[in-house]
Amino acid sequence: MHAPLNHRIVLASHPDGRPVPANFRLETAPIPEPQEGELLLEILYLSLDPYMRTRMNAEGTYADAVPLGTVMLGGTVARVKQSRNPAWQEGEIVLSFSGWQRYAISDGSQLRRIDPAIAPISTALGVLGMPGFTAYVGLLDIGRPAPGETVVVAAASGAVGSAVGQIARIKGARAVGIAGGPDKCAFARDVLGFDAVVDHHAPDFAKQLARACPDGIDVYFENVGGKVLEAVKPLLNDFARIPVCGLIAEYSDAGAAASISLGDTLFKSLTVRGFIQTEFVERREAAFLQEASQWIRDGLLRYREDVVDGLEQAPQALIGMLDGKNFGKLVVRVSGD
Amino acid sequence: MHAPLNHRIVLASHPDGRPVPANFRLETAPIPEPQEGELLLEILYLSLDPYMRTRMNAEGTYADAVPLGTVMLGGTVARVKQSRNPAWQEGEIVLSFSGWQRYAISDGSQLRRIDPAIAPISTALGVLGMPGFTAYVGLLDIGRPAPGETVVVAAASGAVGSAVGQIARIKGARAVGIAGGPDKCAFARDVLGFDAVVDHHAPDFAKQLARACPDGIDVYFENVGGKVLEAVKPLLNDFARIPVCGLIAEYSDAGAAASISLGDTLFKSLTVRGFIQTEFVERREAAFLQEASQWIRDGLLRYREDVVDGLEQAPQALIGMLDGKNFGKLVVRVSGD
Repeated sequence: MHAPLNHRIVLASHPDGRPVPANFRLETAPIPEPQEGELLLEILYLSLDPYMRTRMNAEGTYADAVPLGTVMLGGTVARVKQSRNPAWQEGEIVLSFSGWQRYAISDGSQLRRIDPAIAPISTALGVLGMPGFTAYVGLLDIGRPAPGETVVVAAASGAVGSAVGQIARIKGARAVGIAGGPDKCAFARDVLGFDAVVDHHAPDFAKQLARACPDGIDVYFENVGGKVLEAVKPLLNDFARIPVCGLIAEYSDAGAAASISLGDTLFKSLTVRGFIQTEFVERREAAFLQEASQWIRDGLLRYREDVVDGLEQAPQALIGMLDGKNFGKLVVRVSGD
Repeated sequence: MHAPLNHRIVLASHPDGRPVPANFRLETAPIPEPQEGELLLEILYLSLDPYMRTRMNAEGTYADAVPLGTVMLGGTVARVKQSRNPAWQEGEIVLSFSGWQRYAISDGSQLRRIDPAIAPISTALGVLGMPGFTAYVGLLDIGRPAPGETVVVAAASGAVGSAVGQIARIKGARAVGIAGGPDKCAFARDVLGFDAVVDHHAPDFAKQLARACPDGIDVYFENVGGKVLEAVKPLLNDFARIPVCGLIAEYSDAGAAASISLGDTLFKSLTVRGFIQTEFVERREAAFLQEASQWIRDGLLRYREDVVDGLEQAPQALIGMLDGKNFGKLVVRVSGD
């Protein structure tokens, strides 16, 4: 009888533009043994997020690059399989940052307990996790929409965009979403409750966006980059705010770099603010978890997950996400929970 | 005997790029008569400021354009020559916005009394006026330098830049100035007390700026645009702030438009914020006047004026300023005070 093995996916090579499956390699290894003070985690869900593409480059852009031959990074929901740390009990469900593998060792220092009573545990990677928190702080701390103002967000059916639009509406603002294709547009409008939704595949996209924003745009939550910004610019009102949390359209296409002239910022008194959610965690995470949990219970904050089965599917799923093929928050079910 | 006449300079035509004297026309007219509730103001000093170039275009950019044939706009220091308004006494010195002329009518609603005991009255157009206030709110409310941080500002010997650098130092930050030519650089370093000054005429300007900022740049106060931003970008630290109050290098040269990619803002968590000082007046002007007056009395906030004699010199002086020919805050002495 063979001992069970750990499966893990490592970065095999740096992508040249769009990633391909050969950039990843599935490896097997013995399941690691926790030492005194450590835990063995069994990964249940792995989060796939756009920022991962930026970590696959040889030179890190806005955060550390994944070294070749090492496990791809990522947020995970895990079960404590074995504990040699008195603070953690076997069977507890935790949020960890264990990456693309089935088992991982933790010293317990970077874990957060997940309460399965609030929502399905996979939401700790989505609406109640990093993407939801990104939407929350980017919209409320940077965008600061006043009641009646217009908030525009792209990838409106995705993990971040869906939360941006719904939180904007909770705060009394008007939410205009941008999505790709009729299914995602219908979902954003009918299920998430966006006030208007525009399909970026439409040939007259810029005109449709202008019609959807008759009072201009007060907050443009930037999470895609590329051509959407060009349609947004002429609609920006004086004193508009542009939180920038991601540029998925540009991660594999250096030629697509969206920019904003200082003249635009001056003549309209704009605020452009790039951010990574980590800067807000200490100050704002507790409030986010409390508010967002309540909004979910009240039916005000809905979410959609796109669940892929099996760790070996992760590379193709990430590649598809970079092309906009996912529909909702993309997670990989690594082990049954 | 002829009655004395009002002299005024009107916008004769819109400039095509760099303004020329023919864009202006000197006119004479009878001195206006104040009606009940009004004052007749005798203009003593006229402020010349870069923003005036933007008002000369046919289509206003960030504020109302001056209609052809009407008086060029501008801030002024005036003496109350005749008062039919009980709130104002003849002989009082006021800050008004009367434009390029020798006499003007006011209803008293947009005036501020100037106390000649604090500083020469012309400073109400400079260090104690709009440029000083622009520096104050842009640096303190947007730039928010922490002690020890590095603040960079161009046009360091000018009305705004000189105040930015000195206020940065008052707040414990390190001030690095950029100026054109050895005289302005020496003034910024030796009189204003900048920690380092770089001449933007130097062929290795970008390298010199890098050497002057060994710890990177935390606040870049943007008041010129053009090529300086390109040298600044690689030196910006994470979480750097860029208040944008003006782009003098671009007002007559559409090809020079400086821009910042959203990728830059994202990967360094930058804040780019365009502003016009008027948005802060209600909330911050009183604090500014109190603090800046005290700094002047204490010798902490110095200033240099470049005074041109005679209203008829205003067009050539404005044209020269747009080429960087002024040395200090440019004002026109319209009548002796």
